[in-house]
Amino acid sequence: MLKVPEHQVAGHLAIDGKLGPLVDDSGRFYKPLQGDGRGNKELAFYESFSSDTRVPDHIRKYFPVCYGSQLLEASNGSGLLHHLVLQDIVSSHRNPSIMDVKIGSRTWYPEASDNYIQKCLEKDRRTTTVSLGFRIAGLQLYEGKESGYWRPGRKEVQSFTVYNVRSILRRFVSSNSSIGNENSDCSFAPSIYGGSAGILEQLLVLKAWFEDQTIYHFHSCSLLILFDKESVSKGSASVPEIKLIDFAHVVEGKGVIDHNFLGGLCSLIKFVSEVLSDSKESSIKDCVESEKPGICTDNGNCQ
Amino acid sequence: MLKVPEHQVAGHLAIDGKLGPLVDDSGRFYKPLQGDGRGNKELAFYESFSSDTRVPDHIRKYFPVCYGSQLLEASNGSGLLHHLVLQDIVSSHRNPSIMDVKIGSRTWYPEASDNYIQKCLEKDRRTTTVSLGFRIAGLQLYEGKESGYWRPGRKEVQSFTVYNVRSILRRFVSSNSSIGNENSDCSFAPSIYGGSAGILEQLLVLKAWFEDQTIYHFHSCSLLILFDKESVSKGSASVPEIKLIDFAHVVEGKGVIDHNFLGGLCSLIKFVSEVLSDSKESSIKDCVESEKPGICTDNGNCQ
Repeated sequence: MLKVPEHQVAGHLAIDGKLGPLVDDSGRFYKPLQGDGRGNKELAFYESFSSDTRVPDHIRKYFPVCYGSQLLEASNGSGLLHHLVLQDIVSSHRNPSIMDVKIGSRTWYPEASDNYIQKCLEKDRRTTTVSLGFRIAGLQLYEGKESGYWRPGRKEVQSFTVYNVRSILRRFVSSNSSIGNENSDCSFAPSIYGGSAGILEQLLVLKAWFEDQTIYHFHSCSLLILFDKESVSKGSASVPEIKLIDFAHVVEGKGVIDHNFLGGLCSLIKFVSEVLSDSKESSIKDCVESEKPGICTDNGNCQ
Repeated sequence: MLKVPEHQVAGHLAIDGKLGPLVDDSGRFYKPLQGDGRGNKELAFYESFSSDTRVPDHIRKYFPVCYGSQLLEASNGSGLLHHLVLQDIVSSHRNPSIMDVKIGSRTWYPEASDNYIQKCLEKDRRTTTVSLGFRIAGLQLYEGKESGYWRPGRKEVQSFTVYNVRSILRRFVSSNSSIGNENSDCSFAPSIYGGSAGILEQLLVLKAWFEDQTIYHFHSCSLLILFDKESVSKGSASVPEIKLIDFAHVVEGKGVIDHNFLGGLCSLIKFVSEVLSDSKESSIKDCVESEKPGICTDNGNCQ
C-alpha cells in the first residue's frame, strides 16, 4: 500500500494530483524517475556508487540504500512510471525533526547549459548558497504533542537569510522552539550536535572523506539532518542521523576533490560548532548563576 | 632608484610605457593604487589587517608587510601617483621559481555588479578556476644557469587545463624541468613540498586558519609559492615560501568562513600531496630497483 510521505520537507510533493515520491510500510521510498535524463542519472549514480569499492564502509552509511528501480502507478495518475526504490530514511523515526541542507556555493555543474547555469546562479545568489556555501532547502521541527510540527512553506524557506539560518540551527535543537521565540535555549545541542555520535562528529567524518575523495562531485545534493526530539527528551539513546540525498547532478570527479561541496560542508560545520560551543558556555553560566556546585558535564548539563 | 621587478609573473607589467609596480634595492615593492576604487580597497585591507588583533602571529607571516602608501612617479609617465608600499617578497631569493595561484572556484564577490560577475564567471569557466577551485595565474621556473627561466606567456597560462596544472606542479619541483619533458623527476618534491617547513605543511597551517576565521573573504586573491632551486640543489637550507597577495576584492566575512577560498585551498593541497606521495613512491621504487639497502628516508632519498 503506497502513500504520500508524511515527513517530506523539500522537493515535489505527491499531492493535488502532482508527481512526487511515495512510501510503503516496509520502509521503502519510491522516487519517480525525473524526466530530462535526471532520473536516469540518479539511478546510474546509485548503481555506480553501490558497487564502487573505493567508497569506504564508514562513508557508505551516509547514503540511503538503493534497491534498484520499479514500475509503479505514478502519483499524478499518469500511469506506470519508473521509480527509484530507496531506503525510507525517515520511517525509523517517530516524530522526526528534519533539515534538508543543500550543500555547495554553486548548485550548477560545469557541463550544464548556459541557460541552466544562469537559472541556478540567480537562485544561488538570491538564497544563502553563495554567501554561506549552503542553503536550507526545507525543514520540519517537532514542537511537541500539542503544537505538532513547524514546517515553513517553500517561499519562506527560499527567503531565509544568513541570520535566519543561524537562528534555525539553534531552534532546531531547542526545547523552547516555538515560532517567534528569539531566545532558543539550545538545550538539545549537546546531545544532538555534540557527543561522539552527534551531528558535528558525523559532519567531520564526511569532511575527512571529502578532503580526499576525487571520485564524485555532488552538485545540488542535500544533506538531511534528522533526529527524534521526543526520544532525546526522554533520555533514550536516539542517535541523530545524517544522510546525503539527491544525486541527479553528480558528475565524475576525475581526480579532483569536490571543493564546492567541501567548502560548503566546512561552513555548515562552523555554524553547528558555534551553536554547540554557545550552548556549552551558557550552561556553564547557568551553573554558576544558579549557585549549583558548578560542575558542568561534557554534554553541557549541571551536575 | 626604482626599477621594474625582475620576477613578476602575473599582473600588469611596468614596461612599454604601461602602468605597473616598481621595486627598489631596499626590498620594497611599490604597487600603483589601481583606479575604480580597487587600490584604495587594497590599502584599506592592509590597514585593517595590520592592526587586527584577531589575526594570529603565525598567520601574519603569510602576508607581505605593508608600509603604507607613497606618492611616486608612475611607470607610465603619467606623473605622481599613490603607490602601496609593500615588502618585496622576491628580493630575498636569488633565482626564484615562482607560481602565482589564484585561489577559489569563484573570483567574483557577491556584492559586485551583474556585469562584473558575468565577466569573472566567463573567465572562471574558461580557466581551471571552476573545475579545480584554483588557477595558475602566472609562473616562472628557474631551469639553471644556461637555460634561465621558463616563463609562459599570459595566453599560454590562461589556457592551462587540469592536465597542464598537474604537470606544472610536478615540473615546478623537478631537476629535469625543461620544456616538453613529460617525465618530470620531482626530485625536489620532498624538500620543497614535503618536510616540516615545506609548502604542504604551510598550506595546512593556512587551511586550519581558514576553517575557523570569519573575518575576511579573500576574493580573487593569489597564493604565491616561491623557492630557490639552486640553493636546494646545493643542499643549503632554503625554506620555500608562501605569501598571500592581491587584496583588492577582500570583503568582510561577517561571521561566515571563506568557504570559497578554503575549498580551492583544499584542492591545491590535494594536488601538492599527490605530487609528494608519487615522488616518495618512485624513490622507494628506485631504491628497490637499484638494489641499494632499500632504506628510504622521509625526504624520499635512498640511504
